[in-house]
Amino acid sequence: MSDLINHRIRQSWTGDGAGAASLPDRAVRWLGQRIGPVGADRGRRADSVSNLADSALPAAAHEDLSALLGAENVLVDADERLARAGGLSYLDLLHRRLGDAVVAPDAVVLPASPEQVQAVLDLCVRHDVGVVPFGGGTSVVGGVAALRGDKPAVIALDLVRLDALVSVDEQSHVAVLQAGVRGPEAERLLGEHGFTLGHVPQSFERATIGGFAATRSAGQASAGYGRFEDMVAGVRVATPKGEWRLGVAPASAAGPDLRQLAVGSEGALGVITEVALRVRPVPTERRYEGWVVDGWAAGAEAMRALAQNHATADVTRLSDVDETAVSFALNAGLKTSALRAYLGARGVKHPCLLIVGWERDVRARQRVTAGVLRRSGALRIGTALGESWRHGRFSGPRQRDALLDLGVCVETLETAAYWSRLDDLYDAVRAALVASLGRAIVMCHVSHVYETGASLYFTVLTSRDDADPVGQWQRAKHAASEAIVGLGTITHHHAVGVDHAPYLEPEIGALGLSVLRAVKSAVDPTGILNPGKLLA
Amino acid sequence: MSDLINHRIRQSWTGDGAGAASLPDRAVRWLGQRIGPVGADRGRRADSVSNLADSALPAAAHEDLSALLGAENVLVDADERLARAGGLSYLDLLHRRLGDAVVAPDAVVLPASPEQVQAVLDLCVRHDVGVVPFGGGTSVVGGVAALRGDKPAVIALDLVRLDALVSVDEQSHVAVLQAGVRGPEAERLLGEHGFTLGHVPQSFERATIGGFAATRSAGQASAGYGRFEDMVAGVRVATPKGEWRLGVAPASAAGPDLRQLAVGSEGALGVITEVALRVRPVPTERRYEGWVVDGWAAGAEAMRALAQNHATADVTRLSDVDETAVSFALNAGLKTSALRAYLGARGVKHPCLLIVGWERDVRARQRVTAGVLRRSGALRIGTALGESWRHGRFSGPRQRDALLDLGVCVETLETAAYWSRLDDLYDAVRAALVASLGRAIVMCHVSHVYETGASLYFTVLTSRDDADPVGQWQRAKHAASEAIVGLGTITHHHAVGVDHAPYLEPEIGALGLSVLRAVKSAVDPTGILNPGKLLA
Repeated sequence: MSDLINHRIRQSWTGDGAGAASLPDRAVRWLGQRIGPVGADRGRRADSVSNLADSALPAAAHEDLSALLGAENVLVDADERLARAGGLSYLDLLHRRLGDAVVAPDAVVLPASPEQVQAVLDLCVRHDVGVVPFGGGTSVVGGVAALRGDKPAVIALDLVRLDALVSVDEQSHVAVLQAGVRGPEAERLLGEHGFTLGHVPQSFERATIGGFAATRSAGQASAGYGRFEDMVAGVRVATPKGEWRLGVAPASAAGPDLRQLAVGSEGALGVITEVALRVRPVPTERRYEGWVVDGWAAGAEAMRALAQNHATADVTRLSDVDETAVSFALNAGLKTSALRAYLGARGVKHPCLLIVGWERDVRARQRVTAGVLRRSGALRIGTALGESWRHGRFSGPRQRDALLDLGVCVETLETAAYWSRLDDLYDAVRAALVASLGRAIVMCHVSHVYETGASLYFTVLTSRDDADPVGQWQRAKHAASEAIVGLGTITHHHAVGVDHAPYLEPEIGALGLSVLRAVKSAVDPTGILNPGKLLA
Repeated sequence: MSDLINHRIRQSWTGDGAGAASLPDRAVRWLGQRIGPVGADRGRRADSVSNLADSALPAAAHEDLSALLGAENVLVDADERLARAGGLSYLDLLHRRLGDAVVAPDAVVLPASPEQVQAVLDLCVRHDVGVVPFGGGTSVVGGVAALRGDKPAVIALDLVRLDALVSVDEQSHVAVLQAGVRGPEAERLLGEHGFTLGHVPQSFERATIGGFAATRSAGQASAGYGRFEDMVAGVRVATPKGEWRLGVAPASAAGPDLRQLAVGSEGALGVITEVALRVRPVPTERRYEGWVVDGWAAGAEAMRALAQNHATADVTRLSDVDETAVSFALNAGLKTSALRAYLGARGVKHPCLLIVGWERDVRARQRVTAGVLRRSGALRIGTALGESWRHGRFSGPRQRDALLDLGVCVETLETAAYWSRLDDLYDAVRAALVASLGRAIVMCHVSHVYETGASLYFTVLTSRDDADPVGQWQRAKHAASEAIVGLGTITHHHAVGVDHAPYLEPEIGALGLSVLRAVKSAVDPTGILNPGKLLA
């Protein structure tokens, strides 16, 4: 979800506790004018879920798991199973709201240590039970869907009890965290030692260390702190063929970097139980600024100039004209009319908002970034917009709930490409989405920049087609994915899961797939690990 | 070979054309005092190589290869085969000097394009002939040894004719180079477009783009430009199961990063034919400085402070006390007595030389680096030492030839570890080498630094044991490798080849080995690719 719009909408929630969030009337009217019918009457919520099958976990497996972990850590009641019945994609949420038949795991299993995870896998091999590793459950690509594959039953292996900071090497700036630690808890644990990970994807509040590693997550501050895989010094992975530990040095020429096989393995090549991570001192200063540039092309050039001149801030992001307009339109707090007048006087016709934020060496680096931005024709708006973005940056999922309550079809998708293809990719994906959805808001931002290219993150809002709400989004997603193939990667940081699996072969080739299958056969010969994901 | 000593010795070669390089008498005397018998009388060179077997290439394979590439590109004469009969390790050179039986490839095959490489592989599968990909032939770990494995014959697949700059994407800063392009030619080709790779390992003058990628090379400016794998945007790889192309975006979450399997594959998982590389504008300014710090521990702390404060120069290296002493001792040009007096007056008892060099944003970055170094207690000596290091930085191999001419056993080995283990690793390797070799000079430098750790590069000089010259080094290398296991990586940038293969399992585990074997089976089911390397 667009972070810019998120924050504004979230502000209307202030003081709102559990559930029943709603958008301000002004925002609802504005949305209706842009995308068609929206309203509280359209936000159906099923009271119950239909057709939840009974647990198919074989009794012998249940007994063995209970003996291993204690009966209280092998859960088969409906609520627990439903709570791990998928992730947070639009279709996941839609199915739940519509009360559609839900595919839930046959049991939820709660090991407390890497050794117990290993023992659970050994046991599941013996009983031929599928295993879906489950962290924060925030996958938006079907990564935690409870698919059985060819197995008679499947468990959700919830890593919530692997919640420890195992060690901190203060000299090397390396900390080992267990897989089940969530973003905020990781920061709290590391903060006690004066360190931070600096990994702040939008899923930060719920997602886990193991999930970040398994999906090659990238946080909003990736320009400064790197992608999650850049932080991974080592991994401990449980597989049906035994435990695997990797990472004895910061870098090595001892053959291929197998850590990069574990990172991105999406639970299909092993269960990550511990991750050794490069950490950094907690920032003692921070500065976030908003800038405006005239038009998407100029904005992308500014981003490229920042990246290729080593002038990026820790957070470096650019909204396109539509995302910027939505942000301004829904922004009750900001004096947008004054801002518009200011920009108009400066001749800015198609404002695109840039957010830049520094978390170390602020003064010196701000000067470098600002110099490049000024030479790129950007105008500094000030710190209010920057700080407001920072405070609202995790609100997307909550905001999406509010939009779903109004009957809005709302989803995001993302990709990345080299700079020379970025404009084509942007145009192609936008065109595909608009052609598929008709009246829709399609917004985009660049949130991750590299010397050679950047990511594109699209947010789509349209009025839900009640006749075929699932097909409506499936067709749009397929059209966007087809537009991506050949120009960029099918996913920059959401991972493959189920949704992107059909597009993996065009990206890595038939040989790439056969290599991944060979690796899977080597570590998981009977195929119990996360059936149907990555290598569907 | 130590770069510091190299430069000084190389200066005595000035004007020396082919062969017959010699060290100054003063240096020879000094060495003799330190390591025992050395002298021109001890540097035997065999006039001819004994026991070169006739080519075992089956006639049918020879015919098919000739039909494919032209007879002039399938060479079986002794000179051509001997020229690809191994790399440049001490033992490689020693064997040649002693006229030992040489294992040479049965033919040298010279394809001119990625398509021809693919066709050669297909043909070698059909004839069951082993294939050793051959670039610059600079491996110091046996990576290009002409081992047959279980095959009746083996060819050297020399990539010298894959010498093109395929494309330059000026907007994305990505250039595609063919595998056979050597370091200087790559820089010349890129320079025509205003770009540089910035990859300058000591093998730069002879080594190739394909070799850099296949071995996870790291250049002397890795602190600024990154390791070679950091530059790799994409690869094109020929395998017995067909061609493989990877790399559609700067970063991706579409499963494991398979580029990192191709990088470091050492010819055992495919033949890299083209590499898409991140390039940077040619520097318009440069500054190299020498600094001195008191003692190894303080030096390592200074390096750590640079890395963890984002204050590294593009070249950031530290010599230990012995390497610094050798540099001073053999330095005829530098006023070392004046320098010693200066350092003495400043209370520096155990000088360790630091070289820092910047190639962009020099003024601002120099200030940052210098600030951290000063706070670490380092003293700036000036630019003369820095520039002198820069000019001599590729002279190691030539200098080693001169030492071999004197009967010196001279070799290097390298590793890397997290900062918290670096001192232990340093002590353990030094102790192992000294215990094995007795009277020896063991020098070390840090040439690659990371936030979490650093590399250690050891140079060893001792008097050759003429009774058992091979065993002398094998025992020392084994002792050093055993010391490394458990503390660091068996190789930071020299790769695995034959020499490090026994130490791969302790580093990546039995499961890691089985994963690599599974990948090999998927791409090279009959095992024709580089037999006996990486996965010996």
